[in-house]
Amino acid sequence: MEFRIERDTIGEIKVPADKYWGAQTQRSKQNFKIGNEKMPLEVIKAFAQLKKAAALTNNVFGKLSDAKKEAIVKACDEVLEGKFDDHFPLVVWQTGSGTQSNMNVNEVIARRANELLNVGSEEKIHPNDDINMSQSSNDTFPTAMHIAAYHAIYHDLIPALDQLKQTLLEKEKAYMDIIKIGRTHLQDATPLTLGQEISGWRAMVEKSERMIKESAEHLLNLAIGGTAVGTGINAEPDFGDKVAEQLSRQTGYSFKSSDNKFHALTSHDEIVFVHGALKGLAADLTKIANDVRWLASGPRSGIGEISIPANEPGSSIMPGKVNPTQSEALTMVGVQVFGNDAAIGFAASQGNFELNVYKPVIIYNFLQSVHLLADSMISFNEKCLKGLEPNVEVIEENVNRSLMLVTALNPHIGYEKAAEIAKLAFKEGTTLKEAAIKTGYLTEEQYDEWIDPKKMVNL
Amino acid sequence: MEFRIERDTIGEIKVPADKYWGAQTQRSKQNFKIGNEKMPLEVIKAFAQLKKAAALTNNVFGKLSDAKKEAIVKACDEVLEGKFDDHFPLVVWQTGSGTQSNMNVNEVIARRANELLNVGSEEKIHPNDDINMSQSSNDTFPTAMHIAAYHAIYHDLIPALDQLKQTLLEKEKAYMDIIKIGRTHLQDATPLTLGQEISGWRAMVEKSERMIKESAEHLLNLAIGGTAVGTGINAEPDFGDKVAEQLSRQTGYSFKSSDNKFHALTSHDEIVFVHGALKGLAADLTKIANDVRWLASGPRSGIGEISIPANEPGSSIMPGKVNPTQSEALTMVGVQVFGNDAAIGFAASQGNFELNVYKPVIIYNFLQSVHLLADSMISFNEKCLKGLEPNVEVIEENVNRSLMLVTALNPHIGYEKAAEIAKLAFKEGTTLKEAAIKTGYLTEEQYDEWIDPKKMVNL
Amino acid sequence: MEFRIERDTIGEIKVPADKYWGAQTQRSKQNFKIGNEKMPLEVIKAFAQLKKAAALTNNVFGKLSDAKKEAIVKACDEVLEGKFDDHFPLVVWQTGSGTQSNMNVNEVIARRANELLNVGSEEKIHPNDDINMSQSSNDTFPTAMHIAAYHAIYHDLIPALDQLKQTLLEKEKAYMDIIKIGRTHLQDATPLTLGQEISGWRAMVEKSERMIKESAEHLLNLAIGGTAVGTGINAEPDFGDKVAEQLSRQTGYSFKSSDNKFHALTSHDEIVFVHGALKGLAADLTKIANDVRWLASGPRSGIGEISIPANEPGSSIMPGKVNPTQSEALTMVGVQVFGNDAAIGFAASQGNFELNVYKPVIIYNFLQSVHLLADSMISFNEKCLKGLEPNVEVIEENVNRSLMLVTALNPHIGYEKAAEIAKLAFKEGTTLKEAAIKTGYLTEEQYDEWIDPKKMVNL
Amino acid sequence: MEFRIERDTIGEIKVPADKYWGAQTQRSKQNFKIGNEKMPLEVIKAFAQLKKAAALTNNVFGKLSDAKKEAIVKACDEVLEGKFDDHFPLVVWQTGSGTQSNMNVNEVIARRANELLNVGSEEKIHPNDDINMSQSSNDTFPTAMHIAAYHAIYHDLIPALDQLKQTLLEKEKAYMDIIKIGRTHLQDATPLTLGQEISGWRAMVEKSERMIKESAEHLLNLAIGGTAVGTGINAEPDFGDKVAEQLSRQTGYSFKSSDNKFHALTSHDEIVFVHGALKGLAADLTKIANDVRWLASGPRSGIGEISIPANEPGSSIMPGKVNPTQSEALTMVGVQVFGNDAAIGFAASQGNFELNVYKPVIIYNFLQSVHLLADSMISFNEKCLKGLEPNVEVIEENVNRSLMLVTALNPHIGYEKAAEIAKLAFKEGTTLKEAAIKTGYLTEEQYDEWIDPKKMVNL
Repeated sequence: MEFRIERDTIGEIKVPADKYWGAQTQRSKQNFKIGNEKMPLEVIKAFAQLKKAAALTNNVFGKLSDAKKEAIVKACDEVLEGKFDDHFPLVVWQTGSGTQSNMNVNEVIARRANELLNVGSEEKIHPNDDINMSQSSNDTFPTAMHIAAYHAIYHDLIPALDQLKQTLLEKEKAYMDIIKIGRTHLQDATPLTLGQEISGWRAMVEKSERMIKESAEHLLNLAIGGTAVGTGINAEPDFGDKVAEQLSRQTGYSFKSSDNKFHALTSHDEIVFVHGALKGLAADLTKIANDVRWLASGPRSGIGEISIPANEPGSSIMPGKVNPTQSEALTMVGVQVFGNDAAIGFAASQGNFELNVYKPVIIYNFLQSVHLLADSMISFNEKCLKGLEPNVEVIEENVNRSLMLVTALNPHIGYEKAAEIAKLAFKEGTTLKEAAIKTGYLTEEQYDEWIDPKKMVNL
Repeated sequence: MEFRIERDTIGEIKVPADKYWGAQTQRSKQNFKIGNEKMPLEVIKAFAQLKKAAALTNNVFGKLSDAKKEAIVKACDEVLEGKFDDHFPLVVWQTGSGTQSNMNVNEVIARRANELLNVGSEEKIHPNDDINMSQSSNDTFPTAMHIAAYHAIYHDLIPALDQLKQTLLEKEKAYMDIIKIGRTHLQDATPLTLGQEISGWRAMVEKSERMIKESAEHLLNLAIGGTAVGTGINAEPDFGDKVAEQLSRQTGYSFKSSDNKFHALTSHDEIVFVHGALKGLAADLTKIANDVRWLASGPRSGIGEISIPANEPGSSIMPGKVNPTQSEALTMVGVQVFGNDAAIGFAASQGNFELNVYKPVIIYNFLQSVHLLADSMISFNEKCLKGLEPNVEVIEENVNRSLMLVTALNPHIGYEKAAEIAKLAFKEGTTLKEAAIKTGYLTEEQYDEWIDPKKMVNL
Repeated sequence: MEFRIERDTIGEIKVPADKYWGAQTQRSKQNFKIGNEKMPLEVIKAFAQLKKAAALTNNVFGKLSDAKKEAIVKACDEVLEGKFDDHFPLVVWQTGSGTQSNMNVNEVIARRANELLNVGSEEKIHPNDDINMSQSSNDTFPTAMHIAAYHAIYHDLIPALDQLKQTLLEKEKAYMDIIKIGRTHLQDATPLTLGQEISGWRAMVEKSERMIKESAEHLLNLAIGGTAVGTGINAEPDFGDKVAEQLSRQTGYSFKSSDNKFHALTSHDEIVFVHGALKGLAADLTKIANDVRWLASGPRSGIGEISIPANEPGSSIMPGKVNPTQSEALTMVGVQVFGNDAAIGFAASQGNFELNVYKPVIIYNFLQSVHLLADSMISFNEKCLKGLEPNVEVIEENVNRSLMLVTALNPHIGYEKAAEIAKLAFKEGTTLKEAAIKTGYLTEEQYDEWIDPKKMVNL
Repeated sequence: MEFRIERDTIGEIKVPADKYWGAQTQRSKQNFKIGNEKMPLEVIKAFAQLKKAAALTNNVFGKLSDAKKEAIVKACDEVLEGKFDDHFPLVVWQTGSGTQSNMNVNEVIARRANELLNVGSEEKIHPNDDINMSQSSNDTFPTAMHIAAYHAIYHDLIPALDQLKQTLLEKEKAYMDIIKIGRTHLQDATPLTLGQEISGWRAMVEKSERMIKESAEHLLNLAIGGTAVGTGINAEPDFGDKVAEQLSRQTGYSFKSSDNKFHALTSHDEIVFVHGALKGLAADLTKIANDVRWLASGPRSGIGEISIPANEPGSSIMPGKVNPTQSEALTMVGVQVFGNDAAIGFAASQGNFELNVYKPVIIYNFLQSVHLLADSMISFNEKCLKGLEPNVEVIEENVNRSLMLVTALNPHIGYEKAAEIAKLAFKEGTTLKEAAIKTGYLTEEQYDEWIDPKKMVNL
């Protein structure tokens, strides 16, 4: 490999000749050979948006020349287009402020911007003095975290939620009149319709979506403007506001500068809060995926009230076996989100004085949760939910032989006599009706009037 | 002990003669000898509010006689006053729907209401048919969970947060002009004022309060009206709405009946979400408590920039030792809240079909978190924070000898030369000024103009 | 209430006249009004064992007079007998070293021992100088943690595990020949016997027991002898060894003094490790409890292959309903243990320098896990497992109509042809045999020879 | 891209022409577009070991021809050498049994083995009938999990632990005589030596290593031989034993076939247990990394008792700043391990009947923990710990002015008088000696005899 020599305040270091990164990136690469988890490219892209907005703002403040500004903006746009995706080699497990990834971005943009400056220009763009002007890793990294997190939610998660919700709404309507047995404690209970059951799933998805959106508003607060410790040293007093405005123009999101920058550098309560909503979603999806696979259990010795698509051979040894694999992937994602939630909360608690230095691990886990949830919801929706069909025969058989229809007798004969009837039917293996009449607590006519599953579901 | 004989649909059972509970409570007591964690009395009180509202509503619907209604309402009021606190003996580790605690409430209220019925009345109040009329454990227990959770937040947690915030605001103002060294990565950084540092803590408390309040709105949705499986079997269609209105009148909170009862019985995403906000608070409090004890570390070989009250002898072996014990209690509470959060999220994911049967463990952990947070914030505020004082001498010495004031030179001489100066001062053990002048990058006059901690804090 | 005046190095304080505790206990009571979670009495009893052993050892070293020793030993014995259970009022949320509970023990024992000294004695027993002689909270509290934890495991958990294992062994044997359908991915699979299925549960309990016992050996290492920071200041060099020997004589357990006291005061890796084994048990119990309730699901629209006892009315609205409530309590305990595990791990990571100050919250969670696991296993065993019965008819029907018996054809006709047969039977709703013969891949005789559930279970 | 047509029991599907995988792999790729987390190659390599051992064993049993065996063994060896690393494209988020990765391995090996069969051979190797012979995903995947987990521990983690331990041992010895102030509750305490302090870290690493090794023994139990549901259908009764023996020969590890295969397919208690030991290590490493960064805090306004290497510029805005970045990476890894532990425990609890279908997420998290721990320990050791140096001047100053040396007076004048002296010195800002003499409780000579830090550390 060919190398060139780069230098920083520590000294000289060899860098691969074909890479745009500089000395500090190279140093991090060598000092942190830990794992394969790269700093997510979304964080890099969020940085590129930020560096662009900062350059434009510094130019307005008269601190950055027009030539430099234009070169920097162009370089940022190229990063956003993905031209330099191979030039951000650092891992998550680096300095806890993300300084090294900030410098990686500064170095790549500076090098590219220097290429873009008019030939013969005497100006030279410096990673710290120009790209990082009026900024610190301590305010830019949390800013990039919020930009990336908010974007991931609106760009990836919400659309996936909407697709899932749409399918659930369709199934809810389509099966609103199919009366089935209810189950509580896994035991037969009073009836409801399949559409009603699915409406519960749909309501979970809707509720989670609302909570995610509400909480995500807090991500619009940006640390930018706080620089090193929150005081904004070396930045104009309204630098944060102006950058947030510019970022809003660039992204279409309504970013603003945080009210209190000391909070913004040291606390990640907002990310904890949003991830709590993601955990709520993970819990709901686990519940839905479990219901689907249990209702589809069988084919002959399970509940079997619904069918789901057979997408692949289920077993390497049992021929013809079909498994609820999409439910399995979705619930494994749920497990991962639960683990990530524990990691994020712990990390958020560990700030000291003017900085929390667990930022990379926080955003890594957050973005993993968002993407796994989004992808697995789309997969579950496309490959399983859309193909879900009721097995009407099984459903009818189950509801008809249920003993819990007896509940409808409570208002007429009271709980205790009703219990007596249910127990008699269970003990003697008869229908509920036979047992009811045998007790003498009601007539056949009364039974037929009072015990009507259709009335019990309150459509 | 004296006993009386009670019966339920399983059969007869002996109950202590002086207790108001009935057969089902007794059965649970005998069948679940697990741990000492009682169903929180707040859940019982929430049930009493609910049973009262239900009786009033059933009476309006003409399903419950005036005599019965009055007796039940009076019995509920007595439970609310605490007259029967010893009559709710069940533990958390019972049936996962909380049915046994619902029946415990039904039985105690029924027995007491029967006593209150006019002598000679032929009416007899039944735990299921009257107290539980139009209800199921499956909708009443989650309703009681939300009532208790919302009440605990507004009655206990928010006031404690407000007290803490108030003290922080006072300290923030009082110390706004005391310039001190900032610290990032535990290393000396650019200065800020003690008031600014405290404002970061205050902003954490405010931010958490806002997130808790926003998320708690979701607790106002009540499951009531869903009865057994969400269809509302055996209840009037608008029973849920009417009870929610009545509860709002009784409590002053704006409860409403959930849009989707199938969701309300099976998902606890709302509680997961609110507890996520509590976890954010726990993370913030951990950070604050850590800052306080580190700043107060010493007395002679620590940071020692602040003093906190000496409330008790700190050591059983080291005489005269004083420890930051309030920080320790607060951070131990933080740990507990983190554990509780894991338990709640897991439990919320485990619903099946029409019911989640992890309700008692969810509300137990939730209320423990609320109470520990509230109590420990009050304790920390009263016994530690109010007595916090700056050690001005130490603070001044630290800021004056800091090398990171060099940061203010960046706009004038660039990052690299500034770094050179800082390193020289560190290497030679001199002041920053001496090193700066020695490098020749700036004059003494420039140094004095540019390096002024007062300007760096941007008050 | 009557009071007396007590004093410590902070000054005077009023203490209830009828209580044996002193000034420092009283101060903690007033300074830490947080929650209701008392320091577990087991920790107090472990302390009493330790104080007794320490007094005996100090006497041997000639540092404590015979009269004092005898009085202290007697006082400790009285604490162990439970005579002073009401005199340990402190909560978990106190100083993180547990100093206040150590002093509570020192104070109560000192007061009682002074009463027991011969009348007219001029000797006076001091909480610090005598009861705490050669000790610090920093080594006694972790010592008490290990004593209490080890005792709880062997006194409570292992016997409960053994009972559970015993029942499982009986059921395993009793049902070893009942062939039933296997289920993987909730889908019908190849057969096994009910006894084999139960043997898997039994193996889980055995495996967990082994892992708990192996890991618990680490709890035998005691911090005693390290005193304030691990150096053993103010204690004889072999004080730790001698106390451990004495404790072993007193308890019958093989305690020893830790190899490295700096570790013993700052790390709780051993407790994390043991609780990891408890978490493994919780995971296994969750699995077993889930299997039991699913196999018992129904009575008419579930799997229904087993019956479990009906211990109580299951529903407040659905008459005659019986629910798997013991499974519910057990799985809620599982959830709690998972939460506790998160709390313990986090707490264990937060030590600084010579001490970890999260000791009370660690032991609180640990002991809660042990007791909830022990109690719920006993309850599950007594109230559910012992009464578990197979529903032979259902089991037979399920195994007979299964399609997965086709797996036995793989060695004869290959996976692909076997799959073809299973799919044909599923599609046409026929028996496997009909489909097999229809394909022509095998004869009726071959089918009868090759497809024999009895051979498939490999008893 | 060029394609070829492959088929499985579902039908035909296009597969990239240059890839060795077959229809089922391709189907999984298309059906599970979830995340980027690939099934770890270590699991694939473990599978290759297993498939080789199975082929050799099936050949011994006379079920697989010599020609097939040889081709398969050669193909497995090539997979082990890494020749086919690009042919295992599946993600973690697939079917929960890992069937699709098992089939991926079966397909790649079958295709390659068919190439390797002598030209003109009429034999044809089938992924299911030959490569998967006597096996199921349900026993092979957990077997591969244990092989991969055990290997990762012994190949990666233990060597990293040993390196760390070695450096700690060296530092412990080198600094055994440097007396420094102890700190408990972050407050000055009695002295110890720097070597003693480091010995505590060393003991943590040693203890964790012992617990990891002890628990890892359980990973030697392999599920192989259980096939589909644990009964071993379609495998010879001693197939599991023979394969375990063969695997032991291949790897040098002492594998054996699990006593109970029903356990082995449904419970992952062993992995939970081992990961609990990893969590203990993560807690210890967090503690060590925190101590290091706090002791190195400063350079001028922190504790500053040690120096650590300056590996890179610490700040993008503060020139000359050096940060404890290796501590930061290590503690972030700690956070991740804690999150992974929560995920693994939850997943392990979710088995049903004859299978736990959360296998991929369990092994993914487990291996991530092992690798992050191993890598970050090596990095921390190389880049930080080896360069750790004491700042002797600071250390001496701190110990000399400490008030807690007073503890040594307890045995001579009692705790209360000693406390009086410490408080007087603190209040008046004097040395301890001055205060001691002022009180009159002891003479100057006594002070000099009794207060000697060298004696207090008990070397």
